Amino acid sequence: MSQLAKCVYRFGMDASGFDVTEGSASMSAVLGGKGANLAEMCRIGLPVPPGFTISCSVCTDFTKGKLNWSDIEDDVWDALSDLEERMGKKLGDANDPLLVSVRSGAPISMPGMMDTILNLGMNDQSVLGLIDQTENERFGWDSYRRFIQMFSNVVMGIDSDLFENVLTKKRLKRGVKDDSELSVEDLKDVVAQFKKIFHEQVDPSAHPGVVVDEQVQFPQDPRLQLQLAISAVFDSWNNSRARLYRKRNEISDDLGTAVNVQAMVFGNKGNTSATGVAFTRNPANGDKIFYGDFLINAQGEDVVAGIRNTQPLDELKDIEDFKHVSKELEDIFVLLENHYRDMCDIEYTIEQGKLWMLQTRVGKRTAQAALKIAMDMCDEGLITKEEALLRVDPDQIDMLLHPQINPDANINVLCRGLNASPGAAVGEVVFSSDDAVKLAAEDRPCVLVRWETNPDDLKGMIAAQGILTSHGGKTSHAAVIARGMGKPCVCGCEALKIDAAQKTVKVHGTDIIIKEGDIVSIDGTDGIVVLGEVDLIQPKVCGILETFLSWADEVRNDEKMGHKIGVRANADNPQDANLSLEFGAEAIGLCRTEHMFLGERKRIIQDFILGDSENIKERALTELLKVQTEDFYEMFKIMDGKDVVVRLLDPPLHEFVDDPRELAVEIAHLEEQNADRAVLKEKKALLHAIDALAEVNPMLGLRGCRLSIVHPELLDMQVYALASATAQLLKEGKNPKPEIMIPLVSVAQELKVLREHCEDVISKVEQDFAVGLTIPIGTMIELPRACVCAEDIARYADFFSFGTNDLTQTTFGFSRDDVESAFVPTYIRQGFLQKNPFETLDPGVNELIKLAICGGRSTKPGLVAGVCGETGGDPVSIDTFYNDEVSYVSCSPYRVPIARLSAAQAKLRACK
Amino acid sequence: MSQLAKCVYRFGMDASGFDVTEGSASMSAVLGGKGANLAEMCRIGLPVPPGFTISCSVCTDFTKGKLNWSDIEDDVWDALSDLEERMGKKLGDANDPLLVSVRSGAPISMPGMMDTILNLGMNDQSVLGLIDQTENERFGWDSYRRFIQMFSNVVMGIDSDLFENVLTKKRLKRGVKDDSELSVEDLKDVVAQFKKIFHEQVDPSAHPGVVVDEQVQFPQDPRLQLQLAISAVFDSWNNSRARLYRKRNEISDDLGTAVNVQAMVFGNKGNTSATGVAFTRNPANGDKIFYGDFLINAQGEDVVAGIRNTQPLDELKDIEDFKHVSKELEDIFVLLENHYRDMCDIEYTIEQGKLWMLQTRVGKRTAQAALKIAMDMCDEGLITKEEALLRVDPDQIDMLLHPQINPDANINVLCRGLNASPGAAVGEVVFSSDDAVKLAAEDRPCVLVRWETNPDDLKGMIAAQGILTSHGGKTSHAAVIARGMGKPCVCGCEALKIDAAQKTVKVHGTDIIIKEGDIVSIDGTDGIVVLGEVDLIQPKVCGILETFLSWADEVRNDEKMGHKIGVRANADNPQDANLSLEFGAEAIGLCRTEHMFLGERKRIIQDFILGDSENIKERALTELLKVQTEDFYEMFKIMDGKDVVVRLLDPPLHEFVDDPRELAVEIAHLEEQNADRAVLKEKKALLHAIDALAEVNPMLGLRGCRLSIVHPELLDMQVYALASATAQLLKEGKNPKPEIMIPLVSVAQELKVLREHCEDVISKVEQDFAVGLTIPIGTMIELPRACVCAEDIARYADFFSFGTNDLTQTTFGFSRDDVESAFVPTYIRQGFLQKNPFETLDPGVNELIKLAICGGRSTKPGLVAGVCGETGGDPVSIDTFYNDEVSYVSCSPYRVPIARLSAAQAKLRACK
Repeated sequence: MSQLAKCVYRFGMDASGFDVTEGSASMSAVLGGKGANLAEMCRIGLPVPPGFTISCSVCTDFTKGKLNWSDIEDDVWDALSDLEERMGKKLGDANDPLLVSVRSGAPISMPGMMDTILNLGMNDQSVLGLIDQTENERFGWDSYRRFIQMFSNVVMGIDSDLFENVLTKKRLKRGVKDDSELSVEDLKDVVAQFKKIFHEQVDPSAHPGVVVDEQVQFPQDPRLQLQLAISAVFDSWNNSRARLYRKRNEISDDLGTAVNVQAMVFGNKGNTSATGVAFTRNPANGDKIFYGDFLINAQGEDVVAGIRNTQPLDELKDIEDFKHVSKELEDIFVLLENHYRDMCDIEYTIEQGKLWMLQTRVGKRTAQAALKIAMDMCDEGLITKEEALLRVDPDQIDMLLHPQINPDANINVLCRGLNASPGAAVGEVVFSSDDAVKLAAEDRPCVLVRWETNPDDLKGMIAAQGILTSHGGKTSHAAVIARGMGKPCVCGCEALKIDAAQKTVKVHGTDIIIKEGDIVSIDGTDGIVVLGEVDLIQPKVCGILETFLSWADEVRNDEKMGHKIGVRANADNPQDANLSLEFGAEAIGLCRTEHMFLGERKRIIQDFILGDSENIKERALTELLKVQTEDFYEMFKIMDGKDVVVRLLDPPLHEFVDDPRELAVEIAHLEEQNADRAVLKEKKALLHAIDALAEVNPMLGLRGCRLSIVHPELLDMQVYALASATAQLLKEGKNPKPEIMIPLVSVAQELKVLREHCEDVISKVEQDFAVGLTIPIGTMIELPRACVCAEDIARYADFFSFGTNDLTQTTFGFSRDDVESAFVPTYIRQGFLQKNPFETLDPGVNELIKLAICGGRSTKPGLVAGVCGETGGDPVSIDTFYNDEVSYVSCSPYRVPIARLSAAQAKLRACK
Repeated sequence: MSQLAKCVYRFGMDASGFDVTEGSASMSAVLGGKGANLAEMCRIGLPVPPGFTISCSVCTDFTKGKLNWSDIEDDVWDALSDLEERMGKKLGDANDPLLVSVRSGAPISMPGMMDTILNLGMNDQSVLGLIDQTENERFGWDSYRRFIQMFSNVVMGIDSDLFENVLTKKRLKRGVKDDSELSVEDLKDVVAQFKKIFHEQVDPSAHPGVVVDEQVQFPQDPRLQLQLAISAVFDSWNNSRARLYRKRNEISDDLGTAVNVQAMVFGNKGNTSATGVAFTRNPANGDKIFYGDFLINAQGEDVVAGIRNTQPLDELKDIEDFKHVSKELEDIFVLLENHYRDMCDIEYTIEQGKLWMLQTRVGKRTAQAALKIAMDMCDEGLITKEEALLRVDPDQIDMLLHPQINPDANINVLCRGLNASPGAAVGEVVFSSDDAVKLAAEDRPCVLVRWETNPDDLKGMIAAQGILTSHGGKTSHAAVIARGMGKPCVCGCEALKIDAAQKTVKVHGTDIIIKEGDIVSIDGTDGIVVLGEVDLIQPKVCGILETFLSWADEVRNDEKMGHKIGVRANADNPQDANLSLEFGAEAIGLCRTEHMFLGERKRIIQDFILGDSENIKERALTELLKVQTEDFYEMFKIMDGKDVVVRLLDPPLHEFVDDPRELAVEIAHLEEQNADRAVLKEKKALLHAIDALAEVNPMLGLRGCRLSIVHPELLDMQVYALASATAQLLKEGKNPKPEIMIPLVSVAQELKVLREHCEDVISKVEQDFAVGLTIPIGTMIELPRACVCAEDIARYADFFSFGTNDLTQTTFGFSRDDVESAFVPTYIRQGFLQKNPFETLDPGVNELIKLAICGGRSTKPGLVAGVCGETGGDPVSIDTFYNDEVSYVSCSPYRVPIARLSAAQAKLRACK
């Protein structure tokens, strides 16, 4: 092995205080994150206990069976001998033992693997040596029992509870609360009992190395301890938790983990010793203060276990013994931040007044902190604007815009669903939209609980604080609409057995029955349902967010850096249009007109669809024309000077009519009751009319532009409304900029004919109003055929806009209604899909989008090609879209800030 | 114009008998089909009345307004003067008039345009000259009245009935039956009345050319007559009938039509004159005899009008006056056939003993004749085998394999539907499959009349002679299954208002009500429904068809000519497998297993789907395993040594259960009747179970390979059945060759996992039976995502097979269930689509197929990629598939012969 590749890297000082570190921060692929940062701290002169790192590639080869222990042991023993020489002690020496910690550390931070073993090197002899050296008998035996406990659990996989039980019994027997109150004799007995557990629990055939004289014994040979610990780290790379984590997070199985072997330092050597964690800034809000906790006379695990209360970092300087350490630590914080150019997360130990750094890394932080730190560091000149932009995760922006459950609140999760729309809500349970509206009128907050919502529920969804459904996936009706409204929503919460008639919910697996009026809290960020009221915090949309996003806009619009990428909003009504502007949308990329037909207006469209005379139909059209013109007038007025892409009517008409099965059942009841024949006849005629609209697969039926072909009068009405609202505003001196988008085009001829049709209506409006109108006419690209025939379709399109929801449906042959909730989670869980393709653009769908852009622009160079589907607000997808040279993305108003940042980041990444 | 391009071409002899023809048969793009063939006949020395042809491009330019009459008149008058010189007569001369015919003739034979004007040049003066010359007063006036009638109708658009009325009144007045019995004076009066009609009917503002002294007059100037006639031909290119015909037949609007101006010859100059049509072989059965009719003393229009009975051609030689002409004609037939190397269709006139050829072209023929002629000509050495193969339209083969309505039968079409499955059937009307089965048991032929069929109707469809539906398109359930069975089917016959409960059909727009037991006849070749019994002819599958198809197979398999293309059959049961072999299928390209679960077995699968205990489900699986094993055993035994591609279960499971709405209505009725609570409870539980399976868009739901992922026990059962049937046959010394096809794959991982799953089951069978099995595992490519990700999917596929039905659905976002019958006809009618994409491969879908083949073969060079969707039996699609380098097509057994020929033709065309 030694001849092949360097597999062990030293770090820290030699015996003469000279730094012999071989790695650096840039070598995390070789040394893992932890090892690389330890090396880096040594390089910049920080006090790090010496040690060595076994590289990740050793782990990879080891787990693949390419290497055995015998191939690497020479290197490991050489490194150990070197460390012993540097420390002037021998591992597990009977008189003055060197003790080491063994820690794993992969290139990417990764839970699930074996973590930490402290005090390795302890045995029946070295415990005495340690006691001699420290003159602290209790410390010696306590260190030994800790080592046995950790080694047994972590390396040998023995249940931790067995050891805890021993301690618990001992404490009970002694009548003490804390292990630290146990006597030396107690601890000696504990060590004996721990060794007995080891003896009983370890399977000798699985671990022949620990068999001595045909008996399992806790290993006394320190080198054997180290060998077993290192091997266990390697093996843990492939345990099921680690594998699952890697699969979910798309981390390669080939990375492997490094092993860090480091001389122990002790924070538990009395009151001049301590251990602590710290952040160079406040990770909760980003304030530029040193932030952290410490615990006097303790080892790291005690901090984690939370047995004793920690003290805040700023009290350290007030303790006489630690005054100098506090100063040293603050200097190190400044040094690390300047060196890493980011907020750092630190672990340290003070051993009898001497500070040792055990770990550092770039620290995790809340959304608010991320934003503030990035902007502060930019102000401080530590990082550039571009770096600042890349420092904030776009999804974190989302958190800033919705109320959240107070993280300090103590909550009992009742059940979990899908985190469909972020934010938290508290209110009375209602089971119908009407009830939601009623409560809203009385200013009583409520949560709308439904099996699944439908377009009829729009008013209830507006009235409620949040929406909770037992069915439907993350792009179900409830989810999509709630996200569009920025309303918290938990959906697909299958544990809820809703009986809407009785107005009760049974919670599966419990005796709990929730009734109307009961208070529930939901958290759409995490998909949590809580019975009763929880404390919410209202996020502040700080002014710095707007500044930060304006930096993002500068990048997006800077043509020197690459092509522009716009951010528009999907908005169907004046409220949403106002929101869009508030959140910084440049235009409206999708204005769906069908939502304008809901609520009160549903009756009118029903008259049009089901009316049995031309008179009724015509009257309905006239009414629709009036209200649509008003809708458009308001929208264009709000969006003055900005594009508004209006999509013509899209959904199958029967979405606007009642459920035929309910009607059929009603008729059956009426028949049995010998109801009035005239009533029956009318009901039957209605059922017949509704049946005539029925389709087996409505998603693949009479919808989109096909509606305009079958019912040209609908197109006439919509285009006349749009054009006359425009004309009116022009006359009022405004600058309306509508665009007409024709949905679901599959053949070029559809667009050609409908485009001509629109142009005719626009001409008529020009005459009627005596104004000139310029209204671009484009198409949604949302069918695979449109993608492969884009060259042809582009001849008749002023712009393209990708509808990724429908395109994903047809590309996969997955219906959003059916498959998503039932299937996509299974597919992701079983590894068929990496991500929900309705949320994050699928690579297959992207192939079609690339074909379409290429085809469209081969006919019309520079053709505007935007995206207005769900993925238009998803950071990962936006990255792909930027590389596809998409012209803009359009998403729900609440996601506009996310999209602004994501688009800028995509461009910055592409620039690199 | 003269300077720009030659626009007039002469044909026929000059005054000295020297041929001055300028065109030839190869110039049909310039001269139209008729003109080119006239020129060709002149070139090979046949007696053709001289004339000239105005080229098609003149028409094109004329109709586009690029040319006016003034631009071309010099050329026309020059050509006319030349013709006058050649004939030694002047057009419409008062003493010895030249008369001409004016005929249109486009490059592609095209009904809808202006046809023929005879006797042009007649006027009040020339009629007298003609009488002088012919010494036949009656002939003169009859010719004049015919000319006025034709000119008025064809050129001026006056209603023909106005003229016929005059003749009818005159005949009544004279008490005669035939116009030929009218006297000279009668005819003179008729001419006068005709001129009066002309005077009254023509709008002077629309036709200023025929206004003399502010009065509309029948034009006396022969050159004006000619000018108007030629212009009328040009204008007719753009009349609505012609435009529609071109649109439907994909003929370019830019071709234009030629105008043929030809000296008149007269078959009506007494008993040594005659006119006739002939074919060089019998166009009905292909027999090598001269075939045709003639009429003595008549003009061509009399033959068409059918007023007098024609005489068969072989009687011509028996008439003394025509003996020499008969010989001359037979020589010409031989000459023409040798020259054109095909059966010719001829028009001729005998004027006072002299034979004149007026037209020839390659003749239309029946399917049987086409086949016989092609093979005979090949035997005769006139054409090669390859040419013979290209001479038969593959769709004609279809006609040979189904009963047809006797073409001589006099039928009254009751209504029309879609010609869903060819062949004719006669039988009693039944409204349910059970009734069909009952009648079949009594040997009473029946026609199953349904709103639309469903899988439950399979037994009824087998029992009935034919299927008639009021709904559904050409790929509806009824259509697909009927075609698969080779059973006649007319579907989507919307005029039929079926009341299945009352067992009656009301015929829309009539008072007719068809009751159960009434006899109807349907013709699925033409989509016709006839009330009562019509005479059917049973086609003979002549032995020559098999020979002919074996020639096609030679071509398909000849690797020197290009890549092989196989023809397989879609067959789901032993009967179909036998049929497939009979029709020459090389293998089974698609064996759908869901059809094996219908009929009796539906109960078992229902138990599996709806069973409320694991016991019930397991018992159902055991039963299914038994019957499936038997199914496969039979199929593989029949197909010994030939591949059988078995598709795993594909349709959504709820297709196997009852209609939830019917059940809900039943429950409502029971509730009102206070039915037994236990019964109600059971029904409600059943409804609940069925509802749980319901999907909004089942086509995009839980089906295909998704079923195998959710219900792996179904896959286990099917694969075990398949593999154990194979093992059993191997042990019996047979050579079973099954392949497993996994449907509806969208991501590669699905195939990877299911493939492994199949392999595990196969291994188990290998152990259980102690045999080695080689069973290829491939996938259907039927989703756009599979096409664009084919490179990846191919890693786990032993073969690809394109399912063009599903692929077309998702590529277009068109559901076959909903859109096809409602939409595709509209789309074709309105020109959005050229063809039904479910019948003939759409170019957009083909783009995806090409991507998939290219992707698949980039991973696995030479990967087998077949087609098993509906388009696999369509000649036009097969041409595309050959060029896509598809490995084989698979279609219903009845279309296998068509596919064999189509594939050979595709290859021959590609070779050229």
